[in-house]
Amino acid sequence: MNFPSKLIEDAVVEISKLPGIGKKSALRLVLHLLKREETQTQLLADALIAMRTKTTYCRKCHNISDDELCQICSSPRRDQNIICVVEDTRDVLAIENTAQYRGLYHVLGGIISPLMGVGPTDLNIDSLLKRIEQVDENEKIQEIILALSPTMEGDTTAFYLQKKLKAFPVKISTIARGIPIGGDLEYTDEVTLGRSILSRIAYD
Amino acid sequence: MNFPSKLIEDAVVEISKLPGIGKKSALRLVLHLLKREETQTQLLADALIAMRTKTTYCRKCHNISDDELCQICSSPRRDQNIICVVEDTRDVLAIENTAQYRGLYHVLGGIISPLMGVGPTDLNIDSLLKRIEQVDENEKIQEIILALSPTMEGDTTAFYLQKKLKAFPVKISTIARGIPIGGDLEYTDEVTLGRSILSRIAYD
Repeated sequence: MNFPSKLIEDAVVEISKLPGIGKKSALRLVLHLLKREETQTQLLADALIAMRTKTTYCRKCHNISDDELCQICSSPRRDQNIICVVEDTRDVLAIENTAQYRGLYHVLGGIISPLMGVGPTDLNIDSLLKRIEQVDENEKIQEIILALSPTMEGDTTAFYLQKKLKAFPVKISTIARGIPIGGDLEYTDEVTLGRSILSRIAYD
Repeated sequence: MNFPSKLIEDAVVEISKLPGIGKKSALRLVLHLLKREETQTQLLADALIAMRTKTTYCRKCHNISDDELCQICSSPRRDQNIICVVEDTRDVLAIENTAQYRGLYHVLGGIISPLMGVGPTDLNIDSLLKRIEQVDENEKIQEIILALSPTMEGDTTAFYLQKKLKAFPVKISTIARGIPIGGDLEYTDEVTLGRSILSRIAYD
């Protein structure tokens, strides 16, 4: 593309570095910002910089946080005996949105993926083990829920964690895999359907 | 959504103000930037600010430009006798990419749309008429090509311009409408097909 302005081109190049945004979409965003007031671009740029430079990670659960201890870890209303292990912050948000879980989290910061060169030492696994070991005055972990994606990498990570956690007197569980609510049995893939039969739940 | 951080929330809110980006996509972009180096976010923010504050509009054709006169208007290699009238900068880029046009442009900055409250006075029409009137030492306009979208608004604008331009000794043309190259005759809508028959082109 021949851009009419070097400044436009620079902005398009930078925006199109973001995932899922190509040059055409980037140009559309740039032209949108040009039509809007200058303050909107200023607010956007400021918010990006503040987000990138001022957010930190919770020293306990490694979730993104504005303070040293995140809102969930510092809340007295959360169940201090249970930890849900997730891949990243998006999973925390997804689980929080269900309003079905009142315990704590532990964000691994990724999953074991030999293809991507991510090994167990790259993840926040040591700090998870320490959280279980050290009996805090508030925190006394009794259960660990592994809430990882049901993919090859997720399963590998879950398997690794399971082996590591065996040494501790904690209950280990994983989120249920099966047919999604509202899903059609007929159109469910055979692996999911097979697993949902194996992991069938007995009526009380 | 319950965001783990006010700063994240602010960034998501600002990003999701952009067209076509919802809160979920915005969060994905924010988490992407958090994983990348701080310099990437800095470069993005700087490029946005520079683009918004430093770009200007060419005083002659109203295209986006870094300088007072855009690259096209100031190029000695462009045909100074022909002006292509377009709605906005994106159309200039689209036509430039065809490499089929070597004349000048005139960017209206919109099209007449009574529903959106855009009238002829909101567009760069007066300056177009002045460009034709004033015989510049280089520029001596002989032809005006109206390259507007074949929509209700585009046709209205073209009709308005045609009436205004009649007063001047210039040739007025519009870009051809017909079946797109590679398009299937059978699946072309009847309006396009009807017009393509009416505007049939004689073999030489």
